[in-house]
Amino acid sequence: MYDIAIVGTGPAGISAAITAKIRNKSIILFGSRTLSDKMRKAHLIENYPGFYHVTGEQLADSLSRHLEQMGIEITEKRVGAVYTFDDRFSLSAGQDIIDAKTVIIAGGIVNGRPIKGEEEFLGRGVSYCATCDGFLYKGKKVAVVGASEDAPAEAEFLSEICSEVLYFPAGEKLPKEAANIKVIKEKPAEIKGSMKADTLITDSGEYKTDCIFVLRDAVSPGTLVPGIELDGPHIKVNLQMETNLPGLFACGDIAGTPYQYIKAAGQGNTAALSAVRYLGKKQ
Amino acid sequence: MYDIAIVGTGPAGISAAITAKIRNKSIILFGSRTLSDKMRKAHLIENYPGFYHVTGEQLADSLSRHLEQMGIEITEKRVGAVYTFDDRFSLSAGQDIIDAKTVIIAGGIVNGRPIKGEEEFLGRGVSYCATCDGFLYKGKKVAVVGASEDAPAEAEFLSEICSEVLYFPAGEKLPKEAANIKVIKEKPAEIKGSMKADTLITDSGEYKTDCIFVLRDAVSPGTLVPGIELDGPHIKVNLQMETNLPGLFACGDIAGTPYQYIKAAGQGNTAALSAVRYLGKKQ
Repeated sequence: MYDIAIVGTGPAGISAAITAKIRNKSIILFGSRTLSDKMRKAHLIENYPGFYHVTGEQLADSLSRHLEQMGIEITEKRVGAVYTFDDRFSLSAGQDIIDAKTVIIAGGIVNGRPIKGEEEFLGRGVSYCATCDGFLYKGKKVAVVGASEDAPAEAEFLSEICSEVLYFPAGEKLPKEAANIKVIKEKPAEIKGSMKADTLITDSGEYKTDCIFVLRDAVSPGTLVPGIELDGPHIKVNLQMETNLPGLFACGDIAGTPYQYIKAAGQGNTAALSAVRYLGKKQ
Repeated sequence: MYDIAIVGTGPAGISAAITAKIRNKSIILFGSRTLSDKMRKAHLIENYPGFYHVTGEQLADSLSRHLEQMGIEITEKRVGAVYTFDDRFSLSAGQDIIDAKTVIIAGGIVNGRPIKGEEEFLGRGVSYCATCDGFLYKGKKVAVVGASEDAPAEAEFLSEICSEVLYFPAGEKLPKEAANIKVIKEKPAEIKGSMKADTLITDSGEYKTDCIFVLRDAVSPGTLVPGIELDGPHIKVNLQMETNLPGLFACGDIAGTPYQYIKAAGQGNTAALSAVRYLGKKQ
């Protein structure tokens, strides 16, 4: 049981992890060792005070070094859902369940709305993580809705274990050509099935599959945390980064505009200190 | 008439200035060229993401360099009051009045409450700025309530132009000995007068003077901005750093806890973008 589970390795999650660690809490930080793809791809960042005229790559490297110097490790798992119990939270990450006393959501903002049926069938023929769930579909036919940076690479990975991969690209990048990867340039519109999802319907076709991997850079907040109060596409927070769920905090892009690195880093700090205060009260 | 006047050169004000400048607004930044004394004196800062294990001096130097590289200048004047008009704000800084379309208050938090009578007589025998108002009391007898870092130095300056300086220390540092500086270790309790303040009453005495200089590192928000809505000792803001006065924003310590550098920098960025949006709507 961790004191604080932090979801996301953009500047908000990193800042939260740093401050939580300084305050001597046991933490688990979920995200990517490359941190934020969005940041890495930023051409030039000029308004993160203290770093003038740096590339996203340079700022990400500085943040990465900061984590290393403090001995903070990144757990490379995608958190699909956070469940609230009386005395704890349970995070589902692929096949694993991790318990924590408090949770900080810093997962960034989703581009695009969920596909119709996606949230209903999540965990039943819909997955957000090829690395986590791919082996469940060994030798089967799967579909990939490729809306994240690493979706092409994940589709390549799936093509090694599944019999066939139908790839529906949302971005320009495609997986490398392979005999069993079929790129279909149609827009996914709906996911259907009975007990389990088994059909992906697009704007111009209908495809039978054993699983539909919807690969986005972030999961929509309502899907991620059942019961969370939203404010439009964002998690509703107050100035202390508290949500409607006691012990659960949000920060960064997912907590509202402006979408800015330094704002995210500032909110991550506040969220961590609010979590520390919450833990202090519970003891 | 500036687009944005920014009061304070801690991390909140600096961050606001950087983002406002990037957004191509005309700005004036009031504060100290040494930035924040509180930061400069910080022994070690570990949780400003990207800078691990730096001294306050090092972080302040990085911020200072960032301002220089962007050609942002600091106006070394103490803003004593911000007045709200229909179409603009007027900032009183010593003998000067500066107009701006929007204002960002990032002046930090005041240690201690105002002295009884202080706010009532401000500008009428009570001053917050020796550099600004000292010459008005050439050859006269003045009192200094020394509650800021630079109060001893300001008292020394006053001793060069005034006939006598009564110095009431709040900190340990005292002005250099001089024939016309008298250090009185009593606690100021009340300022009295009729049209103008002329008496400082302490816990054990009463002193006639021509002016009482109350030198703190920051001015209390209610004194600084007549009509501002407060939340305890802080200016009340929402997540966009908006106050109850349209066009006036607050950020950093003055806008609430936690008192943290990275939180202040994040809020400064948000305040600047809110000011930019406000200016866009008015055009």
